[in-house]
Amino acid sequence: MASLRVALAQVDPTVGDIAGNLALVQGAVARAAEARADVVVLPEMVLTGYPIEDLVFRQGILDDNLAALDEVATSSGDMAVVLGYLDRDDDGPRNAAAFCVDGAVTARYFKHHLPNYGVFDEARYFARGTEFTVVPFREHRIALTICEDLWQDGGPFAAARESRADLVLCLNGSPYERCKDDARLALVRRRAAEATAPVGYVNMVGGQDELVFDGDSMVVAADGELLARAPQFAEHLLVHDFAGPAQPIAPRLDDCAELWGALVTGTRDYVRKNGFTSAVLGLSGGIDSAVTATIAVDALGAEAVHAIAMPSAYSSQGSLDDAEDLARRQGIPYLVVPIEPAVKAYQEMLADTGGLHGLAQENLQARVRGTLLMALSNEHGHLVLTTGNKSELATGFSTLYGDSAGGWAVIKDVPKTKVWELARWRNAEAARRGETAPIPEASITKPPSAELAPGQVDEDRLPPYDVLDAILEAYVENDRDRDDIVASGFDAATVDRVIRLVDLAEYKRRQNPPGPKLSSKSFGRDRRLPITNAYRPAR
Amino acid sequence: MASLRVALAQVDPTVGDIAGNLALVQGAVARAAEARADVVVLPEMVLTGYPIEDLVFRQGILDDNLAALDEVATSSGDMAVVLGYLDRDDDGPRNAAAFCVDGAVTARYFKHHLPNYGVFDEARYFARGTEFTVVPFREHRIALTICEDLWQDGGPFAAARESRADLVLCLNGSPYERCKDDARLALVRRRAAEATAPVGYVNMVGGQDELVFDGDSMVVAADGELLARAPQFAEHLLVHDFAGPAQPIAPRLDDCAELWGALVTGTRDYVRKNGFTSAVLGLSGGIDSAVTATIAVDALGAEAVHAIAMPSAYSSQGSLDDAEDLARRQGIPYLVVPIEPAVKAYQEMLADTGGLHGLAQENLQARVRGTLLMALSNEHGHLVLTTGNKSELATGFSTLYGDSAGGWAVIKDVPKTKVWELARWRNAEAARRGETAPIPEASITKPPSAELAPGQVDEDRLPPYDVLDAILEAYVENDRDRDDIVASGFDAATVDRVIRLVDLAEYKRRQNPPGPKLSSKSFGRDRRLPITNAYRPAR
Repeated sequence: MASLRVALAQVDPTVGDIAGNLALVQGAVARAAEARADVVVLPEMVLTGYPIEDLVFRQGILDDNLAALDEVATSSGDMAVVLGYLDRDDDGPRNAAAFCVDGAVTARYFKHHLPNYGVFDEARYFARGTEFTVVPFREHRIALTICEDLWQDGGPFAAARESRADLVLCLNGSPYERCKDDARLALVRRRAAEATAPVGYVNMVGGQDELVFDGDSMVVAADGELLARAPQFAEHLLVHDFAGPAQPIAPRLDDCAELWGALVTGTRDYVRKNGFTSAVLGLSGGIDSAVTATIAVDALGAEAVHAIAMPSAYSSQGSLDDAEDLARRQGIPYLVVPIEPAVKAYQEMLADTGGLHGLAQENLQARVRGTLLMALSNEHGHLVLTTGNKSELATGFSTLYGDSAGGWAVIKDVPKTKVWELARWRNAEAARRGETAPIPEASITKPPSAELAPGQVDEDRLPPYDVLDAILEAYVENDRDRDDIVASGFDAATVDRVIRLVDLAEYKRRQNPPGPKLSSKSFGRDRRLPITNAYRPAR
Repeated sequence: MASLRVALAQVDPTVGDIAGNLALVQGAVARAAEARADVVVLPEMVLTGYPIEDLVFRQGILDDNLAALDEVATSSGDMAVVLGYLDRDDDGPRNAAAFCVDGAVTARYFKHHLPNYGVFDEARYFARGTEFTVVPFREHRIALTICEDLWQDGGPFAAARESRADLVLCLNGSPYERCKDDARLALVRRRAAEATAPVGYVNMVGGQDELVFDGDSMVVAADGELLARAPQFAEHLLVHDFAGPAQPIAPRLDDCAELWGALVTGTRDYVRKNGFTSAVLGLSGGIDSAVTATIAVDALGAEAVHAIAMPSAYSSQGSLDDAEDLARRQGIPYLVVPIEPAVKAYQEMLADTGGLHGLAQENLQARVRGTLLMALSNEHGHLVLTTGNKSELATGFSTLYGDSAGGWAVIKDVPKTKVWELARWRNAEAARRGETAPIPEASITKPPSAELAPGQVDEDRLPPYDVLDAILEAYVENDRDRDDIVASGFDAATVDRVIRLVDLAEYKRRQNPPGPKLSSKSFGRDRRLPITNAYRPAR
């Protein structure tokens, strides 16, 4: 194609912060102008943030975002600015893109394909666009598309070809999912071929509640060649000149690095965008709290992370040593508060009722810890991070209002086997950088235990984690039926036990704090099941 | 129309309990046969229960419900059986109705209008039907419709007229909402006129998680005359013979009686369908816990409700007396556990960190109570009922993991002013029946206080409840904008303060237990807002 310099602005908007998002857009416009771009492109609904859920229905947010769009349009010059915003007409709210140039909005596009599966509810929010938009711009014809338009066959990309567009822009709010990246590049390539035109794909970065946007903006030629690609999990202005020299292509992160990036980004943005500057968590000496603390330190800095060890009569000295070791390695403020006095007080208070035994006594210990963390949170303003992993959340292997008490569940979508893998990866990463390993080896290698009863280990109650995680992947992430899972080689009694645990723990998950979605099916809006559910697939 | 006897079976299915639901259907069929009905009609998706959410995607539940349908069809004779079930074809899952007669399914209908607003996500689950179904049956032509088909203009009812149907059956899973009833009758009348045929409207009863189905099945003539109507909140077989004598029309409940019915039904079904037989709650002597306990007793019986008073240093003797009085009036097992020993233990444990003050200390008291209730729940198998009302939940005037800890939030959708009204109504109802008033007068008349600090009353921190509830109704239920609310005559600073409290409490609501939806917008799936939300409508 003829000379055109495109700038893709991979930014991190905040839902509802329209003034802040406008400033982000203006900053990107200024930097694109410095880079002498012809067109600068910003993500889907960048002015409101994304997804805004039922805020779509508020007149105020609509009005404010239209005023912000007007400001962008009015101050536009000969460089075109293309950005996502919220519109509304007689058919309802619109997930929209505007093409601004020479002081005005010269074209609009309304998203055609509205995702209404997984975490998405766009059929609830938006009226579907039906018109195609191809904008004549200098000697070019630029087609506009938004996110899901890319994921569905047919539609705007085919129309771009018919209307002889020589560039298709795609504005995205596309959340990170493990292993989604390659699918994304393959899709952009497929659509470029369908349009017989290059595609400029811009995605946001940052966290919005459970979603983490990874960026990964790119330019792909009509023949599928990857011309430019932005790094993941970082704001970036990706400038590509179709007549210029080749651009550096940001290397892809490997699986663990990508996961870690999503965990750190999601945690940093949830804390920051909700007005917190510090976090507190319980350190048990085990692998889950060790990895959670390390993610928090990478996200917030060591001085902003407060670790509390809360040993009971059943805590081993080794665990306490490992907790202290971790805090020392990472320079985290560290405090030890034994829980025995409160546990004893409750037992005495309930002595007349017959006292507490077994599980009730175990849960009590976890709730004393939860209460201590919340007390420190209320007194000092730290956000409480919970440390439960996905395998626990799946099977209900946690105490409601105990270890699940807190504001952000950092590793709620990381299966236990992956927690270990991430720990090893993070320590190896430190070694590569010549730094101290952040996580004590003993926390990685010892048998996992909740230490709520003498000599207890997790495998007393759960199958070995490699078996458990494989069954959970089949049942939860892949929605496979019981018979199908058994047929693939798992012990039938074990499968039945795991399925029953998962089904019965729905009420606990419903009261769990949010945490970053990483998999294709996290325990959040991805998976909507009734609590009251008598269906028992087990035979 | 010519002679036809229709039986509308208003039953209470359980989500996922396909064997149990099949038995319900078979029971209704047997009773309809005894009543010599020509057609018996059961509610929307009666074989699976409703709504089944993501269970739609499970092959097992589809297969089991199809097998149940086959059993119903195979055993059908000359009486037609019309019932809702889950179907699936190449286009996806279907919200379906089957017409069974003479041993076979002779017609099927797939719901046309899929609600995707409020609590409903049917665009996520079902492919939309496009065919109309009119079944020739003896000398009649019977049209089939499902629920939302009734709520949308145009469609199957108009088609019924064109195809000369002389009866339209409408199968429903229509949840109770305050003041919805009249709308429902008006709608059935409108559609009967549109179809120029009588309409048989059958709805389920019972609770499914937050939804409460109130029944209210009815038969309306083509000219709008109400021919028969079933009672609310009770299973019922409503038999109407178009050639027979007039049927008794169940009287409508008034607003408070209807609300109470929904609260009792929702609570009874949540407890029962989740396998519990008893409940425990904290009694403070205040109005919220008094009303919650009374609902629980009406739902479960006094001997199944366990009340615990947990006084602190700030609890008044009057409150403790009121709590004991309520327990005695209703014959509830009652226990007093002072919380001071645990509060003191925590304070001492955290003395080195500077101790707890202000709100942190208040929250600690609430969390000690939450921990005691959960301990008794774990030890004795009772479900914990929480006692927070909608005004509290809206403004975050509660302690996470404290008074909000529990499995079922009985009055979460009842504003505080309505809690008082319900208490007075229930006492008056007792007087009408010649029974002891269940709720002590002092609990109704004294100024509300959380009693977490000396001399504290709610109005220290919140506007008077009549003002607060009016602003909340405007902002939450009616989604009105800040400026619009101020313009309707409320103090601007008060409106801003309330809106800010509501917006900031989203994270607490997300971890609240479920409770029955009663209003047009409850804090549940009705209202989906981001936690991370920088939008501040206040000026």
